[in-house]
Amino acid sequence: VSTEHERIARIHELLARPSQHVLLGIGDDCAALAPSALPQIATVDAAIEGVHFSRAFMREDEIGYRALMAAASDVAAMGGTARAALCALALPAALDEAAFEGLLRGLAEAADALGFPIIGGNLARASEISLTTTILGECPGRTIARQGARPGDALYVTGSVGGAALGLAALRADSSRPPRFAPAVARFLRPRARLELAAELARCASAAIDVSDGLAQDLAHLCRASGVSARLELARVPRLPEFEPLARELGLDGEQLLLSGGEDYELLFSARPEDVPSGFATQIGAIETGAGVRVLGPDGGLRTGSAGFDHFR
Amino acid sequence: VSTEHERIARIHELLARPSQHVLLGIGDDCAALAPSALPQIATVDAAIEGVHFSRAFMREDEIGYRALMAAASDVAAMGGTARAALCALALPAALDEAAFEGLLRGLAEAADALGFPIIGGNLARASEISLTTTILGECPGRTIARQGARPGDALYVTGSVGGAALGLAALRADSSRPPRFAPAVARFLRPRARLELAAELARCASAAIDVSDGLAQDLAHLCRASGVSARLELARVPRLPEFEPLARELGLDGEQLLLSGGEDYELLFSARPEDVPSGFATQIGAIETGAGVRVLGPDGGLRTGSAGFDHFR
Repeated sequence: VSTEHERIARIHELLARPSQHVLLGIGDDCAALAPSALPQIATVDAAIEGVHFSRAFMREDEIGYRALMAAASDVAAMGGTARAALCALALPAALDEAAFEGLLRGLAEAADALGFPIIGGNLARASEISLTTTILGECPGRTIARQGARPGDALYVTGSVGGAALGLAALRADSSRPPRFAPAVARFLRPRARLELAAELARCASAAIDVSDGLAQDLAHLCRASGVSARLELARVPRLPEFEPLARELGLDGEQLLLSGGEDYELLFSARPEDVPSGFATQIGAIETGAGVRVLGPDGGLRTGSAGFDHFR
Repeated sequence: VSTEHERIARIHELLARPSQHVLLGIGDDCAALAPSALPQIATVDAAIEGVHFSRAFMREDEIGYRALMAAASDVAAMGGTARAALCALALPAALDEAAFEGLLRGLAEAADALGFPIIGGNLARASEISLTTTILGECPGRTIARQGARPGDALYVTGSVGGAALGLAALRADSSRPPRFAPAVARFLRPRARLELAAELARCASAAIDVSDGLAQDLAHLCRASGVSARLELARVPRLPEFEPLARELGLDGEQLLLSGGEDYELLFSARPEDVPSGFATQIGAIETGAGVRVLGPDGGLRTGSAGFDHFR
């Protein structure tokens, strides 16, 4: 195992990238970015071994990749642009070089895919692996918050949901990654923060949140912040092909997985239908007066609430 | 133990502060700050149970306070102004309410003392407590990096060093905190990030770093970044009253403690002597050509190198 200094040198080699916006990158007390005339946004997200990931069925580069993507997703949900990341790594002393470099490669791959540099961070010893990622960004358009949904708005989600939770369940059941689960496993292991949709989101959405805790719970967050209720129509919720049979194969209820499966990192938002470009997102319900989330099944019947992930329940 | 949602509500109650610079604070996907015409700086620092702190001899509010101060110190070392913090908390599921709120009160106390708000963060479950703090700031004057020290500059440190390490050793030896160790214990438990010195630092320093890993090691970092060497004169290094006898009482070598004791969060910097205001800092040596750090004892004899803290050694 190499020293802290040698590890920091390796971090510099693997993560540093030239950027015209960066005045000072990895290696100083702080990183520095060029001034900007736009509102500055920032978010932090932790990926912790045994809670957010397991080395039993994930490679280290996949762990690093997901950690950065999950953090960047919060910037997309604000309608923002990501400018840079800071990565705080807490690592067991016994973690070997290959695992350490795998984490770094995954972080770098995600940042490269999203087009911004990692400009700093922290390295410390801990009993379990954790990656705590700060994303710095800005809002070139309107800043879209969770608050702002109004009765009469329609409710939308980008892409599809539930796939990451299905993929995680598949990995847990069989780490050999059978091909029929490949699309779901890819949704879990290779999520893509929806930064490419952020500018359009800023034009059309009245409120937004990313789907990280699960559709039902994240919708409840949005409703609470906006002081509204929502009607969610399960039949309309976009999902992967063969979603229900694959869920059944793992002994899971497809409906519950759609509602409570988190970590898809899609964008859930409210908007006036006339403001949403065709094909940008799928309408899955509506914003109404009152409080809470009403889930309607394919038969139109009311489903009882489905909770998402709670760290302390 | 309360749910994640209840804990987040409590975080909001204890940490949220009004601020004219904050467009969006705790509770959304990202926090947002008003635009600024200045270079933006950011840093992240982790405080991890069993590595950076122990609940055996520290209260939770002391743990929270130190975590934020340690992170803010990096902003001071750049000559910067802190604007806001993000606090990522990783907590064991069994952590009780009182301990949880103690951490929050300590974080809030430190931020209040430094005059900036905590505007966001993250809450997750983990097997050990860790607090990962991001500080967002800006540089109203020059941005002072580790790089920039030139042969002929003098070497300075603010305040005194070694006290935090002495205080930590005293706490470990006797958690009842005997009064004669109170000044040292306060240096460890109640450090103060030197943000009030940052503007003057930006006017006078050619390079700077905060003393977090230990005087010798942090000086080595500064020398390496600047491509210079340094001469450090031990007799000149400012320390607490009765430092040596108190160190001896704990079975420690005072000289080694001065050199390798970290977490004082004072500012170590190089400058031309004529640029440094009287009383601002203590001259403790000089910058020279070459590489490495030469430590001279009170007798003028050369001391062998003293390493600071290395997470992976």
